[in-house]
Amino acid sequence: MSSTVSALVTTSAGAAFLRSTIQRRDVGVNDVKIAIAYAGICHSDIHQAREEWGSAIFPMVPGHEIAGIVTEVGPAVTKHRVGDRVGIGCFVDSCRECDACLAGEEQFCAKGNVPTYNGREYSGEDTFGGYSTEIVANENYVLGIPEGISLAEAAPLLCAGITTYSPLKHWGAGPGKQVAIVGMGGLGHMAVKIAAALGAEVTVLSQSLSKQEDGARFGASHYFATSDPATFTENNSRFDLIINTVSADLGVDAYASLLTLNGTMVFVGIPEKPLAFSTPSLIAKRRSIAGSNIGGIRETQEMLDFCAAHGLGADVEIIGADEVNAAYERVIKSDVRYRFVIDTATIPAPAA
Amino acid sequence: MSSTVSALVTTSAGAAFLRSTIQRRDVGVNDVKIAIAYAGICHSDIHQAREEWGSAIFPMVPGHEIAGIVTEVGPAVTKHRVGDRVGIGCFVDSCRECDACLAGEEQFCAKGNVPTYNGREYSGEDTFGGYSTEIVANENYVLGIPEGISLAEAAPLLCAGITTYSPLKHWGAGPGKQVAIVGMGGLGHMAVKIAAALGAEVTVLSQSLSKQEDGARFGASHYFATSDPATFTENNSRFDLIINTVSADLGVDAYASLLTLNGTMVFVGIPEKPLAFSTPSLIAKRRSIAGSNIGGIRETQEMLDFCAAHGLGADVEIIGADEVNAAYERVIKSDVRYRFVIDTATIPAPAA
Repeated sequence: MSSTVSALVTTSAGAAFLRSTIQRRDVGVNDVKIAIAYAGICHSDIHQAREEWGSAIFPMVPGHEIAGIVTEVGPAVTKHRVGDRVGIGCFVDSCRECDACLAGEEQFCAKGNVPTYNGREYSGEDTFGGYSTEIVANENYVLGIPEGISLAEAAPLLCAGITTYSPLKHWGAGPGKQVAIVGMGGLGHMAVKIAAALGAEVTVLSQSLSKQEDGARFGASHYFATSDPATFTENNSRFDLIINTVSADLGVDAYASLLTLNGTMVFVGIPEKPLAFSTPSLIAKRRSIAGSNIGGIRETQEMLDFCAAHGLGADVEIIGADEVNAAYERVIKSDVRYRFVIDTATIPAPAA
Repeated sequence: MSSTVSALVTTSAGAAFLRSTIQRRDVGVNDVKIAIAYAGICHSDIHQAREEWGSAIFPMVPGHEIAGIVTEVGPAVTKHRVGDRVGIGCFVDSCRECDACLAGEEQFCAKGNVPTYNGREYSGEDTFGGYSTEIVANENYVLGIPEGISLAEAAPLLCAGITTYSPLKHWGAGPGKQVAIVGMGGLGHMAVKIAAALGAEVTVLSQSLSKQEDGARFGASHYFATSDPATFTENNSRFDLIINTVSADLGVDAYASLLTLNGTMVFVGIPEKPLAFSTPSLIAKRRSIAGSNIGGIRETQEMLDFCAAHGLGADVEIIGADEVNAAYERVIKSDVRYRFVIDTATIPAPAA
């Protein structure tokens, strides 16, 4: 037995989202059922819905920034109770046996974890994401959202929050560290907030100065336009850590030159084409270029608790189901401050 | 007053080496004079003598892998005595004031250190390297060569040894670590010896299997031909650390795929053209690409002591002054096992 729930569905690459229904499995002994309240729109939703990252599974219901309320729990569930505020991020299962899973870093599961959408359960069933009214998932892959963050502002933390928190923590952002955030969009604005809350001195490197006031509000001490060549001379060898949230070829060597001795630039996005670098850019100051991939369940919970303790949530524009297609176009134009979240109560089809 | 000493000199980019003389400064209060016994031929000598790394200073006397005996010391010298076995590496001075110098990492001197050749002292005089019979240098930039390594086998340690020792130590090569060395030439063969002596399990990734027996003798447990595509599937996600000694575009993504979770590939060479990589190669397992530049004086001494304690020296072919031009051609063809060192006693012009 399964249940029929409302969802926004796209049936082929680039096709518009339409109201429809999908099946959710019955609540198993270790499962929780969640009434979804908000689902964030991540740029990666667009890449997948348009098959820009390779062949995808259709029909598709994107959404891996999910926040809601527990409505039912299986008999063996111990981590969550009916009425709890919870979230789901980029994956809903993992092998639970490999070194990465045992270390709580399920994002690196050797078997490959189960993506929240555009993926398949180990049993073979397609997964459907958060652009929907309900979801059923194993309790271990469901996060608690602490009081103090609204569900709408919490939803984007499940991807944009953890994707930036994890590298900031891994590479030691904190007091005495100079951290630069390249790009201040959905990911970047969370990176600024989190890096500042961790105690680092934060600099935003953005194409223009158009969001400079927001940068200061989020906690950045400095803001530079990368369209100005002086930015690169003024900030030469300055940053211990650069989090690059921009999925475009910005010129790796130019940004590497901003790293201090032993500094690291971390990519969290996937530019369409390969990036070029020259080894002297790295050799000159023992610099590193790295990549980071979301975060594990344990660290995602840590991030949510950290954000709640510091009063951090995403800056969101709440939209209805009818606005999703237009929102995609606006995301592509970077015309959102700073994350769209879908009010999932608007998804069910109005009575005829 | 200065002294006239014999040297192998090239007078313009790519010109043959000829026997000639150069001036060495008098021994200052903090200087030592060294009778050079052997000078290694580093591939970077060729790049500079041929102006492949940009405009160079001529006349040029290359050589930054220098081993010899102290013949005179200035009155304030405390670190070395006449008769000591000593060496000089890639630089002969640094600012001594910046953070890097104070940390003993003079290779990253903020002012720029003084290269042993193809450089200028802070006073403005040209520097001349080891293809010569004598050199005068400040005692702080002169290393002690312990008993137990012959001077000929020690000379290449001053560049090839420290260039590989430093990243191996910095990135934690040791027991329980899987370390791959890409390319087994002058640098690579020292990397294999040192990584094995540090206790790591060492794999050589070489174009062919032609040097496999040597690899085993140097301490490698595994040896793979990179011309065989199976090498990349068999060793997927295997290495904690890859030291890439090859100055060519081997395909960064293919080599990155060999790194385990949190693994690092370190470049110590300078390919002519930029290298391309795709961020998913790094993101998939939080991998890093880094660069490393020789080492500081303190670490170079540590490396020499380590090599002596473990009975490690370079495998060398000792050549005379007449053979240097031909040796350059052989280095370019990778036809040397594994480092040419010039017997500098052959440099003085024979009596007419």
